[in-house]
Amino acid sequence: MGDWVQDFTQGSAEDAALLGGKGANLAEMTRLGLPVPPGFTVTTEACRAFLANGRTPAGLVDEVDAAVARLEAVHGGRFGDADAPLLVSVRSGAATSMPGMMDTVLDVGLNPTTVKGLAALVGDERFALDSWRRLTEMFSRVVLAVPAEALERVRRPLLEAAGVGDAAMLDSEALGQLVEAYRRAVQEHLGRAFPDDPHEQLVAAVMAVFRSWNGRRAVDYRRLTGVPDDLGTAVNVQAMVFGNLDDESASGVVFTRDPATGAPEPYGDVLFRAQGEDVVAGVRATAPFTELAQRLPEAAADLDAALATLEDRWRDLCDVEFTVEAGRLWVLQTRVGKRSAAAAVRIAVDLVDEGTISTDEALARVTPAQLVQLLHPRFDADAPRLVLTRGLAASPGAASGVVVLDADEAVRRVSQGDDVVLVREETSPDDLHGLAVARGVLTVRGGLVSHAAVVARGLGVPAVCGAADIVLDDDGGGFSVGVVHVAAGDVVSLDGSSGEVVLGAVPVVVPEPSPEMGTLLGWADARRTMTVLANVDTAADARRARDLGAQGVGLCRTEHMFLGERLPVLQDVLLAEGDEERQAALQRLEQVQVGDLTALLAEMDGLPVTVRLLDPPLHEFLPDVGALEVREAAGDLDEHGRRLLAAARPLQEHDPMLGVRGVRLAVLQPDLLRAQARAIAHAVLARRTAGGDPRVRVMVPLVVDPSELEHVAGLVRQAIAGVAAAAGTSLDLPVGTMVETPRAALLAGRLAQVADFLSFGTNDLTQLTFGFSRDDVEARLLPRYLELGLLDADPFGTLDAEGVGALVGIAVDAARLAAPGIEVGICGEHGGDPASIALLAEIGLDEVSCSPPRLPVARLAAAQAALGVEHRPDA
Amino acid sequence: MGDWVQDFTQGSAEDAALLGGKGANLAEMTRLGLPVPPGFTVTTEACRAFLANGRTPAGLVDEVDAAVARLEAVHGGRFGDADAPLLVSVRSGAATSMPGMMDTVLDVGLNPTTVKGLAALVGDERFALDSWRRLTEMFSRVVLAVPAEALERVRRPLLEAAGVGDAAMLDSEALGQLVEAYRRAVQEHLGRAFPDDPHEQLVAAVMAVFRSWNGRRAVDYRRLTGVPDDLGTAVNVQAMVFGNLDDESASGVVFTRDPATGAPEPYGDVLFRAQGEDVVAGVRATAPFTELAQRLPEAAADLDAALATLEDRWRDLCDVEFTVEAGRLWVLQTRVGKRSAAAAVRIAVDLVDEGTISTDEALARVTPAQLVQLLHPRFDADAPRLVLTRGLAASPGAASGVVVLDADEAVRRVSQGDDVVLVREETSPDDLHGLAVARGVLTVRGGLVSHAAVVARGLGVPAVCGAADIVLDDDGGGFSVGVVHVAAGDVVSLDGSSGEVVLGAVPVVVPEPSPEMGTLLGWADARRTMTVLANVDTAADARRARDLGAQGVGLCRTEHMFLGERLPVLQDVLLAEGDEERQAALQRLEQVQVGDLTALLAEMDGLPVTVRLLDPPLHEFLPDVGALEVREAAGDLDEHGRRLLAAARPLQEHDPMLGVRGVRLAVLQPDLLRAQARAIAHAVLARRTAGGDPRVRVMVPLVVDPSELEHVAGLVRQAIAGVAAAAGTSLDLPVGTMVETPRAALLAGRLAQVADFLSFGTNDLTQLTFGFSRDDVEARLLPRYLELGLLDADPFGTLDAEGVGALVGIAVDAARLAAPGIEVGICGEHGGDPASIALLAEIGLDEVSCSPPRLPVARLAAAQAALGVEHRPDA
Repeated sequence: MGDWVQDFTQGSAEDAALLGGKGANLAEMTRLGLPVPPGFTVTTEACRAFLANGRTPAGLVDEVDAAVARLEAVHGGRFGDADAPLLVSVRSGAATSMPGMMDTVLDVGLNPTTVKGLAALVGDERFALDSWRRLTEMFSRVVLAVPAEALERVRRPLLEAAGVGDAAMLDSEALGQLVEAYRRAVQEHLGRAFPDDPHEQLVAAVMAVFRSWNGRRAVDYRRLTGVPDDLGTAVNVQAMVFGNLDDESASGVVFTRDPATGAPEPYGDVLFRAQGEDVVAGVRATAPFTELAQRLPEAAADLDAALATLEDRWRDLCDVEFTVEAGRLWVLQTRVGKRSAAAAVRIAVDLVDEGTISTDEALARVTPAQLVQLLHPRFDADAPRLVLTRGLAASPGAASGVVVLDADEAVRRVSQGDDVVLVREETSPDDLHGLAVARGVLTVRGGLVSHAAVVARGLGVPAVCGAADIVLDDDGGGFSVGVVHVAAGDVVSLDGSSGEVVLGAVPVVVPEPSPEMGTLLGWADARRTMTVLANVDTAADARRARDLGAQGVGLCRTEHMFLGERLPVLQDVLLAEGDEERQAALQRLEQVQVGDLTALLAEMDGLPVTVRLLDPPLHEFLPDVGALEVREAAGDLDEHGRRLLAAARPLQEHDPMLGVRGVRLAVLQPDLLRAQARAIAHAVLARRTAGGDPRVRVMVPLVVDPSELEHVAGLVRQAIAGVAAAAGTSLDLPVGTMVETPRAALLAGRLAQVADFLSFGTNDLTQLTFGFSRDDVEARLLPRYLELGLLDADPFGTLDAEGVGALVGIAVDAARLAAPGIEVGICGEHGGDPASIALLAEIGLDEVSCSPPRLPVARLAAAQAALGVEHRPDA
Repeated sequence: MGDWVQDFTQGSAEDAALLGGKGANLAEMTRLGLPVPPGFTVTTEACRAFLANGRTPAGLVDEVDAAVARLEAVHGGRFGDADAPLLVSVRSGAATSMPGMMDTVLDVGLNPTTVKGLAALVGDERFALDSWRRLTEMFSRVVLAVPAEALERVRRPLLEAAGVGDAAMLDSEALGQLVEAYRRAVQEHLGRAFPDDPHEQLVAAVMAVFRSWNGRRAVDYRRLTGVPDDLGTAVNVQAMVFGNLDDESASGVVFTRDPATGAPEPYGDVLFRAQGEDVVAGVRATAPFTELAQRLPEAAADLDAALATLEDRWRDLCDVEFTVEAGRLWVLQTRVGKRSAAAAVRIAVDLVDEGTISTDEALARVTPAQLVQLLHPRFDADAPRLVLTRGLAASPGAASGVVVLDADEAVRRVSQGDDVVLVREETSPDDLHGLAVARGVLTVRGGLVSHAAVVARGLGVPAVCGAADIVLDDDGGGFSVGVVHVAAGDVVSLDGSSGEVVLGAVPVVVPEPSPEMGTLLGWADARRTMTVLANVDTAADARRARDLGAQGVGLCRTEHMFLGERLPVLQDVLLAEGDEERQAALQRLEQVQVGDLTALLAEMDGLPVTVRLLDPPLHEFLPDVGALEVREAAGDLDEHGRRLLAAARPLQEHDPMLGVRGVRLAVLQPDLLRAQARAIAHAVLARRTAGGDPRVRVMVPLVVDPSELEHVAGLVRQAIAGVAAAAGTSLDLPVGTMVETPRAALLAGRLAQVADFLSFGTNDLTQLTFGFSRDDVEARLLPRYLELGLLDADPFGTLDAEGVGALVGIAVDAARLAAPGIEVGICGEHGGDPASIALLAEIGLDEVSCSPPRLPVARLAAAQAALGVEHRPDA
C-alpha cells in the first residue's frame, strides 16, 4: 500500500512530482487560504502502480473512499444522498501539462436518486437534469469509451426534434429523454448498465485518467518533448461548484496581466450563469472581465485579492479559472500563464522593476524564439489568406510584392517604386543586386544555407527557399503551382518564419522594438561571458550591427565586395591575358578593397574586425559554363562571352565545395592573396592616419594542415610588412584560421601553435562531417530524414552535438592545451541559433559571430547559456 | 678530448653509429682476417664535435698523427718519406649511405718529394706522376673548393695539345706540366700554395668531409629521408694499394650473387691495371668478372674465399670493392648490396633454402614496392624513347597502342585486332566498355582516384591520369602536347608506374611471376594476422582474385553491374513513367543482379562476399545534362534524348559527392533498395540449391547515423526474409556498414551496436576529412602542395596518419568498446598501399580489401605489418 491519496489541505506547490502540477497548485492555494472547493488528489504514485501492474493498486479504493468521507465531512453533502448529494469533478493533472490525456469529468455522483436531490436543493429541475446529461455524456465517452458516433446517433434526433443546436438548450423533458437514451446506448454498447453508484463512478473515472496516460496522443507528445514515460499523472477530485446555478453565478478565466501585451492589469473573460466548460467550449459569447466588477462587485473584489496573492506567490503571470456560485467566489485552478513574445519581455522587465524577480530570472523567462518573433514582421494571424505552397523558412520576416523573375528587373521595378518579391530557381552571386532591393526572396531549390538563404538572412530580407512545388515558366513569364499560374507582376506574399507563400497581399504585423527589450538585452550583455560579434561585409551592415550590439566583426567575407556591379573587377583578374594585364587588374582589385575596408573599419572603430581571405571557388565569379555552352551551341555568344567561357572552363569542378577554394586558392594564386593582404594593410594605415583605432585580424579559410597555414600566413605577413615599410612604419596584424575541415579540427592543437586565433566555420564543418552538401541535401533529403526520425534536427540549423559538436569539443580541448588563452570562436550560421550557442558555450568558446538580425537573439542566448537556462523544445 | 680515432683493428660491424657504415664494415672485415689495407677511422663523434663548435676538435690532430704513426709501423712506409712514402685514401662514411657528401680523396701524402720516392719504389715514373695528378685534382676540387671550371681551364689546353680525351692518358711530361698548372691555379685562386705536408693534407681532407655533411645536397637528402641532422659522418683513412701498378694488378666490384636475377654466383666487373675509380668512372670498358680467374687465378681464389666469408657474416647479398696489387688481393670495402626486385625475391627465398635466414627475415627483405614492380610490365629501361609528357602514375604497367578517343572506337579497333590506348579528357561509367578492352588509359584530368584511375587499377590496365599538358582537339581527331600533334591512330606508349607518355612504341619488359614469389607469399600468408580480401565486381574478377590469394570479397560494387551495355537496365528505372513501368524496370534490374551475383558467389564459394548497395548518385547513370542541353540548343535531341534530359535535370547536384547517394538513395527510393536486397536473397538461395556455400554480407554505404542504418538494415532484412519465406525457407544475412563520413567515425561505437560489421571507406573518408574532392584537387592542387611541402604525401595514395588515421583510430576503439569482437576492415584504395596497411594493422583492423592486382602486395605488406618491418621511404 502506497501514498495513494492526499487531501488539498496536505500538500503545497513543491509537490508537483507527486500531485501533478494542477494538484500541487490546488494544495498551495488551499494553504494560502484562497477559496478553493475542497477535495483531494489521487497521486502520480498511484498512477505508476497502476501502470506497472495494469490494475487498480491494492488499497486505492479504500483510500479514495476514506478521502470521500473526509470531503463529505467538510462539505456537508454526501455521495448518493437523496437530500444533500455531494458531486465532484475529476480532472487529470500531470507534473507538466500534457495534451492528449483525459481532461475532465464533471458532476460525478449524479444518478436517478441524487439528480432529484440536486433539483430540490437548488430549486431547478432543468439545471439538475442538464447536469446529469453532462455527466452521462462525458462519462460515457471518456470513462466508458463509448464511441462519439454512438452518442451522436442518439443525440441528433432529439436536438432536431427540439430545433436546437446544443443539448444545453433542451428543456427538462427532452433532457430526461436524452439521458435515458444515452443510458440505453451504454447498455447496448457495453452489455451492462451505466454505473449509478457514485463510488463506482469515481473510481472508474480515476482509472480512466490513468489509462489515458498511455493513449496514442499522450505517448506521441511525450516522445516529442522528451517527457519520461514512467512519470504518470495525478487525478484531482474536487467538490462541484456551479457557475450556472443562478444570476449571481458565473465562470471565467483571468490572467493576472495582459498575456498579449504584458500590461500590468488583470485580463480575462467571464460568462454569467455558466459552467467553466462553457467558457472553454466557446458556445456562448463571453463578456469582458471588467463586467464582473459591475455585476458581482463583491466576488470581483475577492478575485482581485486572490490574483494579487497568486502573483505574489508565483512571482509571474498567473492564469486562473474561477467560478462564482450564488455570489461566492471559488478559485478552481491556477498555473503560470502562457504569454506572447512581447508580453514575455515586458512582464519579465516589469517584475524586475517591481522588485519581484532578479534580472537573472528575467533573462531566463524570455525564450530566444520569442525574441526572433519580436524582431521580424509576420503575417497577421487573423488575416484570411490563400496559401499557394510552402517552402523552407529560410529568413524570418513577412513581405508582399510583385513577382519579378530576374535581378535586373527587380532593380527596375524598385526604381519605379514597387515592392518586389524576387522568384528564382535558385540564386547566385550574379543576383545580389536583385536580392539587395527585394522585399522578399522565393527560390524553388536550395536549403537553409543555400546562397539565397544565407544572403537573405545577412541582408535581413525575408526568404522562403526550396519551394519545390513551384515550376518556373520556360519563358520567364511567371510560375505555376499545380493548376494555379502566377504571372510576373502579380502580387504574392511570403512569411520567412513559417515558409508560407500566399497569393495576393497579406496584412503584416510589424513589431516595434520595445524599450523593455533594450533593458533586457542590457542585462544579457552584463551576464554573458561570450563575446558576440557580427558577420558583416559592408560599412552599412557594420553600422547596423553595432546598433544591434555587436562587439566587433567575426567574419567579413571579402568575396562579397565583388558582387553585383563590382563583379567585373574580379572577372578582369580571371580574364587577364599576360602578366601585365593581370597585375593591372589585381591593382584595381586592391584599390576597391582598400576603399571598402577603410569604410568598414571606420564604423567598427576600436572593435575587432576579422577579415577573411577570398573563400569561394573562382568559377563562382564567372557565368555558368553550361549556360554559356548552350548559348554557344545556339550561336548566341559574343567575343566577351567566348572569353568568359574560355576562362570558366578550366575552373569547372565536379564538387566545388571540395575543390580549389579558401586557402587553396591562396596557395595556387599567391598574387591574388598578396593583393588582398596589401589592401588590408593600406586600409589599416589609412584609418590610423585619420586618427582611428582599426583592429583588424586576418583569417585564413579552409585550412587542413599547419604547414599550409604557416605558408600562407607568412605570405600575408610579408605583404603587410611590405606596405607598412613603404609607408615608413611597421604593422603586424594577428593572422588566424578557420576550423572548417574535420582534419583542421583533428589537428587543432598544432594549428593553435601557428594561428593567432581560431574560428569554427560550422557550415562547412557540418557539410564535411556528414558528407551533406547543404545545397543538394537540405531540400531533397532532410525533410524525409526528419519525417522518418533518422535525424533529430536539420544539422545546418542546429549544431549536431554528437558529431560536429564532438569534433568541435576535441578541437577546442587540443587548442587550449597547446596554446592556453588562444581565442576560439565560431562564425558559421549556427552562431545565431540559441540551442547551438548553448552547446558552444558549454564546449567553452570565447566568441560567437552571427548575421546582424540575429544579434539580439545571440546576446540573450549567450546570457542564458552563462546562466545554464534550458528551454523545452516546444518553448 | 673525445673518442676521435679508432684503428680498423679495434671495431666491428656493430659500431656503425660511431664508425659509419663503411668504417664499421672495414673493422669487421679486419676482424674476420680478410686482406684489408690497414688504416683507421676518424669517428662520427669527432664530426659531431666539429659541427657543434665549427672548428677542429681539440686533440684531434694529435690523435690522427698518433694513428698515422701506428699505421706507418704496420705498413712500413712513412708519411713524407722520400724512399718509402706512405700514401692513404680518405673516404667519407656515414651510418647510412648518403649521397651528396664528399666521397673520396686518393693518394694523400704525395708531394714533390714523395712522388719521386713512389716512382722509384714502383719503378714507374709515369704511374707516380699520374697518381700525383689525381691527388692534386681531387684535393683542389673537394678539399680546397677550387671551382671545377678553374681546373678545367688549365686542363683543357694540355689535353688538346696531347690529343687525348682523359688526363690518365697523358705522358709523364704532360702530367708533370698539368700538376704544376693545377698548383699555380690553386695559388692564384686561394692566395696560398697547395699544401705539401702530408699531415696537413690529411687533416684538411678529414675536415672537408666533415664540412660536406652540411652541404646543400646532403641536407636536402636528410630532409627527404628523415635522417637526423646531428648524426654526423665518419672518415676512413686507409693505406693506398694500387690496382694500376702493373699487369698483375686490377680493380673491380663484385656482388656475391647476381643483383639482377639473384642467381647464386658471384657477379661483377673487373678492370686490369686500373684503380677503383676508373671502374666507377666508366672511362675504360670493364671485363667480366670471370676473366679474373683466368688472368689472376690466385687472387681470384682468394676473392672467392673472401666472398664466402662475407656472405656468411652478413647473411645477405654483399657488394664488394677489391683491388689486386702485384698479384695480391686487397678488399677495400663491402656493404649489403642493392638488388633488383626479382633478385630480392629469389635471394630471400634461396637464403631460407640454404638455411642462412629464417622465413620471417626473408619476408622483411622484399619491399612491397619491389613486388609491385615484379607484377607489372615496365618500359625497358635501356630503350630510347621520346617522352611527350608526364602525368600521374595512376595504374601500374606499361603499354603501347594506337590512340583512340572514344570508347566505341576502342571496341571497334580492338575487334580488328589492334592494341589501343584510350585517351579521354576524363572517363565516366559510359566509357567502361572502352576501358575494359584498352591496353592503356590516358586522361587529361583526374587524379589517382579519379574514375579512370580506380577502374584501370581494378581492371589491371595501365593508366596515366591528369596529364594536364595534353590538349584534345575539338573535333576528336587527336591531341596536342605543345607543338607536337598526335592523331587518332598514331601509336603512343605509356608507363603507369612512372607516368611517362611516349610517342611511338617502346619495348616493354614483362616480368614472369617466379616460383620464388609464390613461396614467399605463402610464408606471408602464414605470418600475417589480417585477412586479405579483394574488391571485385564480376565473376571473372573474382576468379582472378582467388588465384591471387584473396580470402573473399571485401567490396562488390553493385553499381558496376549496370555499366556499358547494361546501362539501359538502370536507366529504365529512372525513365519509368508511372508505378507499373517502374515496377517492371525494377524487376528486370533484380533479375540481372541475381544472375551476376550467383556467378560471383560460385567463384567465391565458401568465402565471404561483401555486397555493397548502390552507392553513386543516380545521375551518374544518365548522360551529362550540360551535353544534352547543348544538343537541345542545337536542335539535335530526339525523343529519347528529351526523356533522358527530363530525368537527369532534377537529379543534378552542385556537389554530387556530398549529395543523394549511398544509403540516402536507399532511404529516398526504398523500392530500388528492396529490389537489390531481393536479388541478393535469390542469388544466395540459387547457390544453396546448387549445393554451394554462399556467404554473403550486405554492406550499407555512406551512413551518418545509427538510426539511418537501423532503418535501412530493417528494410533489407525484411526483403530478404520475404524472398526466403516465399521459397519456404529462412535467411538471415549479416548487414554491416561502411564508415566513410567523419560523423560515422565519430559515432562508430553506436554504429557497432547496430551493424554486424564495419568497413572503412577511406576514399570518401579522406575526401571529407580534408574537404578534398579527389577528382578536382588531386591533379590541380596536390602537386603544388607536395612541392611546397604543405603535405607529406598524396592522402589518396597513402593514408593520412594524423587526420584520417586518427579518425579511424577513434572509431575502431569506440567500436571495439561497444561491440567487442566486431569485424572491422577497410575497402578503400588504401587497402592496397603498404604504408597504409602498416598503419591500419597498427590501429588494429581485422581485414583489408584491395583490387586484385594489389593482392600480392597486400599479402606481403600485411605480413610485414605483423612482423613490425619498417621500410625507409626511399627503399
